[in-house]
Amino acid sequence: MASSKSAEARLVELGIELPPAHAPAGSYVPVRRVGDFAYVSGQGPLIEGCEEPVTGKVGEALDLDQARRAAYLTGLNVLAALRAEVGSLDRVTGLVKLLGFVNAAPGFVRIPEVINGCSDLMQEVFGEDGRHARSAIGVAELPFDIAVEIELIAAVRD
Amino acid sequence: MASSKSAEARLVELGIELPPAHAPAGSYVPVRRVGDFAYVSGQGPLIEGCEEPVTGKVGEALDLDQARRAAYLTGLNVLAALRAEVGSLDRVTGLVKLLGFVNAAPGFVRIPEVINGCSDLMQEVFGEDGRHARSAIGVAELPFDIAVEIELIAAVRD
Amino acid sequence: MASSKSAEARLVELGIELPPAHAPAGSYVPVRRVGDFAYVSGQGPLIEGCEEPVTGKVGEALDLDQARRAAYLTGLNVLAALRAEVGSLDRVTGLVKLLGFVNAAPGFVRIPEVINGCSDLMQEVFGEDGRHARSAIGVAELPFDIAVEIELIAAVRD
Repeated sequence: MASSKSAEARLVELGIELPPAHAPAGSYVPVRRVGDFAYVSGQGPLIEGCEEPVTGKVGEALDLDQARRAAYLTGLNVLAALRAEVGSLDRVTGLVKLLGFVNAAPGFVRIPEVINGCSDLMQEVFGEDGRHARSAIGVAELPFDIAVEIELIAAVRD
Repeated sequence: MASSKSAEARLVELGIELPPAHAPAGSYVPVRRVGDFAYVSGQGPLIEGCEEPVTGKVGEALDLDQARRAAYLTGLNVLAALRAEVGSLDRVTGLVKLLGFVNAAPGFVRIPEVINGCSDLMQEVFGEDGRHARSAIGVAELPFDIAVEIELIAAVRD
Repeated sequence: MASSKSAEARLVELGIELPPAHAPAGSYVPVRRVGDFAYVSGQGPLIEGCEEPVTGKVGEALDLDQARRAAYLTGLNVLAALRAEVGSLDRVTGLVKLLGFVNAAPGFVRIPEVINGCSDLMQEVFGEDGRHARSAIGVAELPFDIAVEIELIAAVRD
């Protein structure tokens, strides 16, 4: 892995174009920066113009592969929010902590594999700096019935 | 918005009298201060002498308006805990991150609107400094069957 | 309480031998250290060779005592992960924030009592420095159907 490459350079190399950053879904801000940290609000897999299935219960409406893909799309929105706040992903000095929520159908417990769709993306984009602590749980309901919601703490510099 | 006013002054202006801070519900402390940050433990909507409905599933026992009101009451308890720890809300230099849990009935997905009951309060009390990152999810069960639980990270000074 | 004792000395005194640290269950690291903080990824109650019941719904497959015990075992894994990262628990200067998830059967709301199994352990091991903020919720599903998952933020020094 080209760990000397910048995150923005890796995005180009991976052929990834980030979607526009979302407006928040309520009375909060997409990213709150404090000191060297950026707290990214919970993001979902909805992307304008993208027709992949991203709502419904995982294990019922979506299978594991579709859910992992929804976590990947959620990761794109996390990156878009982060870039909109700090200007460039090259100002991200490291990821810290990710918290992943899966809209789980009763009995669906392959939760880590779903959230890997986002974690794997982060490691592809940030390399060694993309290492992060993580918790992942299956929840009863998510806003707008999205399949996945993910929040992130990142370390950033000016 | 009178952003030059202090948080305590705004509380008076809004006619809000905070309830007494709760004892914790287990082997933890209501607020843990470390460096410039105060971590407020998950608070609920129970307020002594207040008879509003604050337990039960949102979407069944409580409707959206009642749940939003429960999130507002939870916000009062968050503020009470914070003030009890740091002495005055005027020592809060900014909010950072809010995590909201809704005791959701099956199919209830208007989760952001519920948690806005707390986020809106925070912005009324802290003005521009009240901006915060947020995640909000619907959970299977909450302690004591409360309708809403909310935790907060705030930035504080001596 | 012998608050002048070190955490490692207290572990010995309590007759606790920590299990080996787990490999992570996905594309993340068990602990992420940043500045003076260590973020411990969500841990579960699975311990090699230990045959206690640690999977299933709390309130159905496990009763309160068994679930509290699962939270205790989870706490051992949290400590093992932390020690593996920082070398010795004596480098932990204080606990900050614990987030506890209970795999709750419908109607099971004694969530704080379950998570006390972990919080009580932390206070026994770290004494006054073990005080922490906490949130605890009941979730729909957890990875591998574990009964409890807990993540922690700790303050550490070199």
